[in-house]
Amino acid sequence: MPVLLPMPQAGDLHPVAGVDLGVASAGIRKAGRKDILVVRLAPDTQVAGVFTRNAFCAAPVHVCREHLASASAIRVWAVNTGCANAGTGVLGLENARRSCEFLGQALHVDSAAVLPFSTGVILEHLPIDKLMAGFEQACSVLGQSDWLDAAQAIMTTDTQPKAGSTRFVVRGQTVTITGISKGAGMIRPNMATMLGFVATDAGMPRDLLQQLVREAADASFNAITIDGDTSTNDSFVAAATGVGTLRFASADDPDWPAFRQAFISLCRQLAQAIVRDGEGATKFITIAVKGARDVAEARAVGYAIAHSPLVKTAFFASDPNLGRILAAIGYSGVPDLDVAALRVLLNDVLVAEHGGRAASYTESDGQRVMAQQEIVVTVELARGNHQAEIYTCDLSHDYVSINADYRS
Amino acid sequence: MPVLLPMPQAGDLHPVAGVDLGVASAGIRKAGRKDILVVRLAPDTQVAGVFTRNAFCAAPVHVCREHLASASAIRVWAVNTGCANAGTGVLGLENARRSCEFLGQALHVDSAAVLPFSTGVILEHLPIDKLMAGFEQACSVLGQSDWLDAAQAIMTTDTQPKAGSTRFVVRGQTVTITGISKGAGMIRPNMATMLGFVATDAGMPRDLLQQLVREAADASFNAITIDGDTSTNDSFVAAATGVGTLRFASADDPDWPAFRQAFISLCRQLAQAIVRDGEGATKFITIAVKGARDVAEARAVGYAIAHSPLVKTAFFASDPNLGRILAAIGYSGVPDLDVAALRVLLNDVLVAEHGGRAASYTESDGQRVMAQQEIVVTVELARGNHQAEIYTCDLSHDYVSINADYRS
Repeated sequence: MPVLLPMPQAGDLHPVAGVDLGVASAGIRKAGRKDILVVRLAPDTQVAGVFTRNAFCAAPVHVCREHLASASAIRVWAVNTGCANAGTGVLGLENARRSCEFLGQALHVDSAAVLPFSTGVILEHLPIDKLMAGFEQACSVLGQSDWLDAAQAIMTTDTQPKAGSTRFVVRGQTVTITGISKGAGMIRPNMATMLGFVATDAGMPRDLLQQLVREAADASFNAITIDGDTSTNDSFVAAATGVGTLRFASADDPDWPAFRQAFISLCRQLAQAIVRDGEGATKFITIAVKGARDVAEARAVGYAIAHSPLVKTAFFASDPNLGRILAAIGYSGVPDLDVAALRVLLNDVLVAEHGGRAASYTESDGQRVMAQQEIVVTVELARGNHQAEIYTCDLSHDYVSINADYRS
Repeated sequence: MPVLLPMPQAGDLHPVAGVDLGVASAGIRKAGRKDILVVRLAPDTQVAGVFTRNAFCAAPVHVCREHLASASAIRVWAVNTGCANAGTGVLGLENARRSCEFLGQALHVDSAAVLPFSTGVILEHLPIDKLMAGFEQACSVLGQSDWLDAAQAIMTTDTQPKAGSTRFVVRGQTVTITGISKGAGMIRPNMATMLGFVATDAGMPRDLLQQLVREAADASFNAITIDGDTSTNDSFVAAATGVGTLRFASADDPDWPAFRQAFISLCRQLAQAIVRDGEGATKFITIAVKGARDVAEARAVGYAIAHSPLVKTAFFASDPNLGRILAAIGYSGVPDLDVAALRVLLNDVLVAEHGGRAASYTESDGQRVMAQQEIVVTVELARGNHQAEIYTCDLSHDYVSINADYRS
């Protein structure tokens, strides 16, 4: 059961002009399951992305980086689930390239115009014949705009599809942003992947889009953690088709901040959905760190708390275990931390100040907050003016069960 | 049930000349439980220690650092369980200092000659009257040399006492090293502490002992992890009483390497005992990283694997889940890592090379290794000549149960 995550409704997911979707069932790991998504982008679409920093990154991640660096304009995103094509050496790269060639021919674009994405079992090779058949099938139905269908096609152990959409008016022109994500669950037998795809019909230069993607990633997909493990395949890409009427020439455009904010909000929603549907999650926790000297130290404190198994089990137990939170702050590596100056709040309840428990704190106040499904831990460092938010979930018995479950 | 951890036998724990032990039950948290240990050290004993780097370090850690830096020779170690005196602000410091004054008067030494150690609940104040009564009682029985009794007195949620001893002959002279430790379990409701105390009757200058303690800590107490959480109270101290006949003037002494090795081995045994008795542990895992450019990167890779909840749950499930290990290596932050050059072994079984699964690997070989209670993961980075070992345990349902258990 995801934590306070509404099921997306098809009617709320607005089509994005210039984006065609095609879904297929290729039987890559399980027969009859949607496991292929092909996204065709209008000519002149700008595409930007960020990818896992894992040195063991998967073959498709290598190929994505190559193709984004090439002169070709990106026209196609090709996603398969069931096999991550990671830890697959030279043959894995070849298979990823063959996928791009196949789709390039099928859709009459350069093979370097195709970005491949895979998620699923690692250390196994793509079943290339099934994959090609699946791509062919997906291409034959291209032209749909069913983003819910697309969100379902990229699910692995996600318990529900993750999608979001926003439509608003700028300078009298309607602009649409729609996206999907899939989570940080495990594919038996191996870690799966965080994938995020977002598209807008607004037009903008590629460098502006790339900058937006980086900023959005830092505030969304790079601010979530289930268990601190970074997958081999994590990818987040965005497309600006420019088929709509709204165009941004640069970040100096007076309407850019509003668009930027809407884009980042949608990414944050998609990223938070991954945590809400995290393995075994029973609580959604925001760690808000304020008063830091820089964003890096705010994030370091946030991640120290969010990664602590002791903190996470305490949340699972609804135990307002302040000591574990303070200890995590203490070992987060912030230099010259003045523990007497910082304050910690659970939602609106001040729990720690002056290096210990707040005088006003009562156990019943703490328990009232901890009983909730959505909790904000605020840490005020009182060192500067920077801040960061990290999103995580608790550590439950189900997490262990899911991840200790032997490969069938 | 600890993993392959023999119960220490009183007869195997050799007395250390110049060390008197006294144990008492002060009822600090539970009535009738041994919770006080006083260690009196002969005049001219040299003492050195290393302490938690947690910025939220406990009051006794502050006082230990002060007293070690003072001109006073250390003559007493005073340990209580049941209350960590951490997150206790100014009053906590006062209470730690009062303990030292009390024991200084009782044992006719300077209060700065006393090192205080506390472990247990954090964010609560020491019950100072009970504590003083306990110290008095322990002082009244000083002179015993029952190290097993001492090991029991510092236990918190440890399921068995942890102690080790070695006695050997150097230049025709018998030398003894004996030590105790307590673990990384939780004290409900808060994280507990790693404590290690080691004593030898050999004599040596303080700077030589301090250097030895640092080296030993890096190879033992600083090389273990249960869950990556660093306590507020972690302390490891050693005493060289010099009451025995063996003296080392410097590290250039030809017999120093043999003594050093024996000392480090004992510390490693005490540290590994903490992991073997780790919360919910069912397996003891050594991560041996070889071929690193420096020790820091070897440790970074080792800790990335040892901290990964995905790796740890796979060990719990006896699942040879290579992908999770490779992914952890991949995100350990080693710069310019050539994943095609590295090799990974589970005990004697080569599992990964050339960036993927080894051709010779079979699932049955992997399962044979994973079924064992003690497993060595060897990572050969092929980048240099440095190495490190990290010791950890698996992540089980019992870990979650123990740490999610609500405070009674």
